Amino acid sequence: MTIAGPNSGTRPDDARRHNRTALLRRLHVDGPCTRATLASELGLNRSTIKAVVDGLAEAGVVTEAVPAQRSGAGRPSLLVLPEASAAVVLAVDVRVDQVSMAMVGIGGQILGRHSWNLHRTTRLPGEVITHVAESAQLLRDELGVREQSVGVSVPGVVRRADGLVFEAPNLGWREVGLGTRLEAVLGSPTAVGNDGDLGALAEHLRGAAREVADLLYLSADVGVGGGVIVGGVPFRGSTGYLGEIGHMIVKPGGRACFCGEQGCWETEVGEPALCRALGLPEDTPRGVLVAELRGLTRVDLLDEVRDWLVTGLVTAVNLLAPEMVVLGDLFAALPAALVERVREEVHVRSLVSRAGGGTRIEVSPLGRDGKLVGAAELAFEPVLGTV
Amino acid sequence: MTIAGPNSGTRPDDARRHNRTALLRRLHVDGPCTRATLASELGLNRSTIKAVVDGLAEAGVVTEAVPAQRSGAGRPSLLVLPEASAAVVLAVDVRVDQVSMAMVGIGGQILGRHSWNLHRTTRLPGEVITHVAESAQLLRDELGVREQSVGVSVPGVVRRADGLVFEAPNLGWREVGLGTRLEAVLGSPTAVGNDGDLGALAEHLRGAAREVADLLYLSADVGVGGGVIVGGVPFRGSTGYLGEIGHMIVKPGGRACFCGEQGCWETEVGEPALCRALGLPEDTPRGVLVAELRGLTRVDLLDEVRDWLVTGLVTAVNLLAPEMVVLGDLFAALPAALVERVREEVHVRSLVSRAGGGTRIEVSPLGRDGKLVGAAELAFEPVLGTV
Repeated sequence: MTIAGPNSGTRPDDARRHNRTALLRRLHVDGPCTRATLASELGLNRSTIKAVVDGLAEAGVVTEAVPAQRSGAGRPSLLVLPEASAAVVLAVDVRVDQVSMAMVGIGGQILGRHSWNLHRTTRLPGEVITHVAESAQLLRDELGVREQSVGVSVPGVVRRADGLVFEAPNLGWREVGLGTRLEAVLGSPTAVGNDGDLGALAEHLRGAAREVADLLYLSADVGVGGGVIVGGVPFRGSTGYLGEIGHMIVKPGGRACFCGEQGCWETEVGEPALCRALGLPEDTPRGVLVAELRGLTRVDLLDEVRDWLVTGLVTAVNLLAPEMVVLGDLFAALPAALVERVREEVHVRSLVSRAGGGTRIEVSPLGRDGKLVGAAELAFEPVLGTV
Repeated sequence: MTIAGPNSGTRPDDARRHNRTALLRRLHVDGPCTRATLASELGLNRSTIKAVVDGLAEAGVVTEAVPAQRSGAGRPSLLVLPEASAAVVLAVDVRVDQVSMAMVGIGGQILGRHSWNLHRTTRLPGEVITHVAESAQLLRDELGVREQSVGVSVPGVVRRADGLVFEAPNLGWREVGLGTRLEAVLGSPTAVGNDGDLGALAEHLRGAAREVADLLYLSADVGVGGGVIVGGVPFRGSTGYLGEIGHMIVKPGGRACFCGEQGCWETEVGEPALCRALGLPEDTPRGVLVAELRGLTRVDLLDEVRDWLVTGLVTAVNLLAPEMVVLGDLFAALPAALVERVREEVHVRSLVSRAGGGTRIEVSPLGRDGKLVGAAELAFEPVLGTV
């Protein structure tokens, strides 16, 4: 993070705004901390910190408290706490089988949430948009808040500039102007992101990869999505479209994929593949599948899925050389013994993992909320500078 | 490129040095141009340009000339030309079958070159290092120049920080301290890079992708290497190791690869695969293979290679979403009709290419020199700021 110093040539107002945003972002991402910690982390002197914190406290964005545990002899440094309701965003996670929504306050606190299941008929874009608008109004009324901005996660190829969903094969959507249409009905600025990309963002800011700059996030829902962060910055392809890791071809001539190809990674390791491996119908409810996975004693039933998971990971690790791979969503329900074997096999089979001393493979701690958390962070991006 | 402006708060010396480096880099990469063009491109006024150019001319780094063709009525703006011999680097391209070396001057001019073939016995690291040192001395004596810095391209997994070659399977090298050892025998600072990465750099600076910020470079030698540039910046994996695109697994259970895996991309589309497809022995001399490829009338012999090439490209494009793919080295010898089919098939089969309106696929114009050019640019990186 760059802090405007005295010699940077920016005007004093810019510097003050910059410091305020940096401090707020620190509190938002890492939680409450003392004035002294803020000063040392942001490289600002105590009087600057005091001025910024006083300003934020006056605006009701932070509160201060005396820490319960004192360290050292002197006067304790005051603890600065973000005031969750001072800036609220609406996060929307559109999945193939469910939409989840949450009002999220500064610091990432979920103030209230709402979700409903999707079926063939309720999955149409118009139906989803109408339902999101109604649910947003319910949440606003119930919580007595109004979102400043909206972030939406979608399992598809998304153009960031205007939130156009070019193709979301598992939803059956093509060229849906989701960002524009939601913005119109919600009346708040709306950003749309690919679910894998937002899952990666969530892991980087609030999950398994907080200290990791080079990260591959991989998750299974009906499809398989992923996101890449390089040097702490989300990796975006050209033309504003993101890459689609679920559509790496891992098994040429394999099972037909919605995208038109055969043997895409998601056809071999996604939710239906897991169901088939366990002898369950492909449309087994998510809760049942997760319970089956968690209680699984015959891990060998998943040998083939594991093999395709490893094959795809070897390819991805050899190509991207991440420091850590985070397994999210349905992959986070895989038996621990299986994950351990995936770890070992990827390390042995990947030239790049061997060279780099081992790519870490971790399970997401965010559970099913990963993409919702990512959508909230997407929405917070423009907000933190204006509070 | 950031230019130090009057309000940036840097000291005047820093600003002058910054402007000098920026101007020299412009001349180095894009060739001679007028003072007027330099002023407008770098956003500097004419008197600053004059001061910088005068300083460089005095140091013998540039010369000036009156352009032959005058535009407009006034006094013509003087043409500024880099003086190739004012800063010279040594570029070394270590391939599986050959080492190429060149002394390269500012502007990318090759002042002299030398190459020799490698065989099983001469491919040992010690042999290569000794031969490079001898050839460097021959080039220095012959040309009457001394390199300021050395850049080396190697087909393997390289740690940039110290030039350690962790593994170069096709050379049979493992954990070779190439950078340190070459620096000791040559007496010049030496940087080592992965050949695919340097090929990408060469295409971006002097090849097919000069105006392209998001680029995937792909080349076949004995193995298949590649490099990625994102937003104009080379993409590096974590821990200083680069990704290895040739070791994406495209055909699980396929042919055994030197890396220990089966069905890596390079086993299906590399030089031996091309030889097999044409009914030639796998150790056919490169010149013969290239001639066969260029004169090929039965393009259908390459149907299977084309199919694996497309399969790998669909995976890579779906994952990385580049604006352009550049085919280099041996791939540049593929029949034009085949390349055209690759173009069409990747576009039809890649979700991300369809979404982005089409990933451009171009053939490298740099021929077999691509990686040598990239090695020279790697060597120039630290030099341009100190001339």
